[in-house]
Amino acid sequence: MAETTVVDNPDQLITSTDPEHPANLIPSLCAKFWTLGWVTGTGGGCSIRDGNLVYLAPSGVQKELMKPADIYVLSLKDQEPSLKQRTYLRSPPVYKPSQCTPLFLAAFTRRGAGCCIHTHSHWAVLVTLLLEAKGNSRVFEINNIEQIKGFGKGFGKAGNLGYHDTLRIPVIENTPHEEDLTEYLEAAMEQYPDTYAVLVRRHGVYVWGDNVHKAKTQCESLDYLFQLAVEMHQLGLPWISDIAQIAPQRS
Amino acid sequence: MAETTVVDNPDQLITSTDPEHPANLIPSLCAKFWTLGWVTGTGGGCSIRDGNLVYLAPSGVQKELMKPADIYVLSLKDQEPSLKQRTYLRSPPVYKPSQCTPLFLAAFTRRGAGCCIHTHSHWAVLVTLLLEAKGNSRVFEINNIEQIKGFGKGFGKAGNLGYHDTLRIPVIENTPHEEDLTEYLEAAMEQYPDTYAVLVRRHGVYVWGDNVHKAKTQCESLDYLFQLAVEMHQLGLPWISDIAQIAPQRS
Amino acid sequence: MAETTVVDNPDQLITSTDPEHPANLIPSLCAKFWTLGWVTGTGGGCSIRDGNLVYLAPSGVQKELMKPADIYVLSLKDQEPSLKQRTYLRSPPVYKPSQCTPLFLAAFTRRGAGCCIHTHSHWAVLVTLLLEAKGNSRVFEINNIEQIKGFGKGFGKAGNLGYHDTLRIPVIENTPHEEDLTEYLEAAMEQYPDTYAVLVRRHGVYVWGDNVHKAKTQCESLDYLFQLAVEMHQLGLPWISDIAQIAPQRS
Amino acid sequence: MAETTVVDNPDQLITSTDPEHPANLIPSLCAKFWTLGWVTGTGGGCSIRDGNLVYLAPSGVQKELMKPADIYVLSLKDQEPSLKQRTYLRSPPVYKPSQCTPLFLAAFTRRGAGCCIHTHSHWAVLVTLLLEAKGNSRVFEINNIEQIKGFGKGFGKAGNLGYHDTLRIPVIENTPHEEDLTEYLEAAMEQYPDTYAVLVRRHGVYVWGDNVHKAKTQCESLDYLFQLAVEMHQLGLPWISDIAQIAPQRS
Repeated sequence: MAETTVVDNPDQLITSTDPEHPANLIPSLCAKFWTLGWVTGTGGGCSIRDGNLVYLAPSGVQKELMKPADIYVLSLKDQEPSLKQRTYLRSPPVYKPSQCTPLFLAAFTRRGAGCCIHTHSHWAVLVTLLLEAKGNSRVFEINNIEQIKGFGKGFGKAGNLGYHDTLRIPVIENTPHEEDLTEYLEAAMEQYPDTYAVLVRRHGVYVWGDNVHKAKTQCESLDYLFQLAVEMHQLGLPWISDIAQIAPQRS
Repeated sequence: MAETTVVDNPDQLITSTDPEHPANLIPSLCAKFWTLGWVTGTGGGCSIRDGNLVYLAPSGVQKELMKPADIYVLSLKDQEPSLKQRTYLRSPPVYKPSQCTPLFLAAFTRRGAGCCIHTHSHWAVLVTLLLEAKGNSRVFEINNIEQIKGFGKGFGKAGNLGYHDTLRIPVIENTPHEEDLTEYLEAAMEQYPDTYAVLVRRHGVYVWGDNVHKAKTQCESLDYLFQLAVEMHQLGLPWISDIAQIAPQRS
Repeated sequence: MAETTVVDNPDQLITSTDPEHPANLIPSLCAKFWTLGWVTGTGGGCSIRDGNLVYLAPSGVQKELMKPADIYVLSLKDQEPSLKQRTYLRSPPVYKPSQCTPLFLAAFTRRGAGCCIHTHSHWAVLVTLLLEAKGNSRVFEINNIEQIKGFGKGFGKAGNLGYHDTLRIPVIENTPHEEDLTEYLEAAMEQYPDTYAVLVRRHGVYVWGDNVHKAKTQCESLDYLFQLAVEMHQLGLPWISDIAQIAPQRS
Repeated sequence: MAETTVVDNPDQLITSTDPEHPANLIPSLCAKFWTLGWVTGTGGGCSIRDGNLVYLAPSGVQKELMKPADIYVLSLKDQEPSLKQRTYLRSPPVYKPSQCTPLFLAAFTRRGAGCCIHTHSHWAVLVTLLLEAKGNSRVFEINNIEQIKGFGKGFGKAGNLGYHDTLRIPVIENTPHEEDLTEYLEAAMEQYPDTYAVLVRRHGVYVWGDNVHKAKTQCESLDYLFQLAVEMHQLGLPWISDIAQIAPQRS
């Protein structure tokens, strides 16, 4: 059984004058996400990993009003799957832990992610609904859009996707309790080892990256592509097109 | 007849350095609502109850420019239904009382609400129009969307709605004078005792909650669902779907 | 011939610490309008009248970067129709006068307006295009929408329009040179004496009011209705509906 | 071979208290572009020319977080086409050079532009997709919209386009590597000598102007027209219409 880390003054974990410190960065990121319509009501969430320390936005907070004092902190070393109760190094006085926690941890432990973002973007939800109407498709695919170059090739692979590559994002079905998504998210990661995101039907999306910069920019690029996909569908334009690798410029 | 409360210095009721004081919070909330397109022109409103004291945004103010000095304050103990004239503990120098006042009071007295918000969101108006076109339906229903979990189960009930639950929001017909909506809003509350909102055809929506946090987050979640509903309709996707309680993940 | 007003130090006309002074208010309003998409590029404009003094945003300025030093000031008493050249009490060093000037003056002199706003809102342009497709209709009409109550009944009339009233906004055809719109705008004011706005086909809209508050809130309410109208059209919903004056609430 | 400029303290090139200095202006412009959805993820870019000095936003930066320290500076005099490696007077410590650089330089050297902006606006992408569906059209054309007056008549020509003029923006096909677009962008400039912009299929748009003001305002007006064009298409309204030069106002 893991030996639980003891911290003398837990609030030191969330106290810093550095705006890049996770306890400051999560609130500022969430405030930005709120303006983008990603974390409406109290939906969505965000987590940053720094070594073995994991910082998490809590459940039930208005995302644009979050403070460092609202942040949960846990150590990956303390987590024991057999323990039903999760151990925190530091807990905020009021809010409950985020139900996204096991999903964030999956990205951290299985993909070495440095940051994981969960949004309820209506573009993401609409994409999953359009795929549901197409015979309950379990994968979102789009190619030949420049913004695809915003995504890494995959965990452990160097470089980014190319313009002509097909971006594939798996879709899992939603469950009544968010933590029950974990096994399905992990299965989707197995089935799509290169993905940095998993869509959840009628719910939203989880997006991660090696660090905050990559998670946030990939999340933006993905929401851009979800919006474009819905608009393309409305205009009768297909998401997968057949353009030759080298498109000759006609004179 | 109720004995009217007398306050020596009424402006003390709206003077505080605490940003969470209702006289400060209503202006900051309304400024936020203005950026969301909920209180365009001088439409919409907001009210906060603190014990028997009720604070109200006035009529005719530009919502993003509201100041604490613009706030009306009344005491629930002073209100007598037979009195045509409403008694205020504190009135702003210029603006008239909000015509939403009796509707806000209905939420406070019948549902113990701590905050009530009224928006003219175009998403809300469009939903009522789509329902009108469907045989003048008097209820908005949607299920199997994660954001539904943002709503309480109902007045006096613990916990929130589940993912598979059907969210039902009654619709009442608009009247030429806003205060005349009151009896219909109260009837809708009777018919739908678990609702935290009432849509008004071709007008907007009233949303309340036990406190400011709940009213504001439920209002956000509802507007998110109204927007999603309109977009789903445009894409030919039904608001009510038939997904089994436990959706088995197919391999 | 009018005796031209001479001002010793013209920059005094645009110098004030009061944020409500027209030379400060026009820049702050235009910055707000820019965020709403009303004054994109260098399109659109705004003018405020204070007695005989008229303050105008110049031509060619980026509206969100406007400064008091960019403001033109003229006196209504100095304007002589036979003079081709307009006389200004104060001119900014760089920018040319707004081509909207005669249209703003029409609102000030014929309707006693205190403020006139010109936007290139794409919702306004789309409405004029939809009307053009309907046999080149010269009037936008909508009824039975609560937001209609945001408009005054008309010049010289007390009170606002009611929920069941029909809001009518005349449409004039655009001309290659903006100042040539003046006679058509004036003719539309004659034909629709109660209007506070005139739409310009494929161009935008002019909205005025007795003062800044009324012009700005009416402009907001009108853009809200333009957006709603386009969305209603996309959903196959008519702008004019037949609801009885008193809509009985069915049990 | 060009004699490379040597600068004693390169960071002096990007250090200034003047907010209009290119090293300060590029970050503030990009922050504004981010709010408009033009530079999502790390897409898009911006460059300003001051004489022979060219300032460039780097690759891979979150555009709303850009700092003067992130800016590349090169001298046009140092650039030699035969050199594969580009010579910079000043390089930021972390970020790589923008792949847009040769395209920006084409606008500077062939059109004497003072500023060039590259966006991934989804409106631009959708327009190129609609044109692709229309037989792979290589030009976007729209007329009889007031906002067209926001564009200069062309390089070396005085004055702006008129309301009845047809705005034509060439479209080039995207290539897997952005710098490979250069020859096609230059060919489009040749074929459309009056254009201030080139659309890139499934990618975005490049817009330039004689100075920052003109580039930025033309970029705004173009994005406005792209959005309008998509919305017009959705409403079944044609981009090219047949309105007589002088539209008689009917009585």
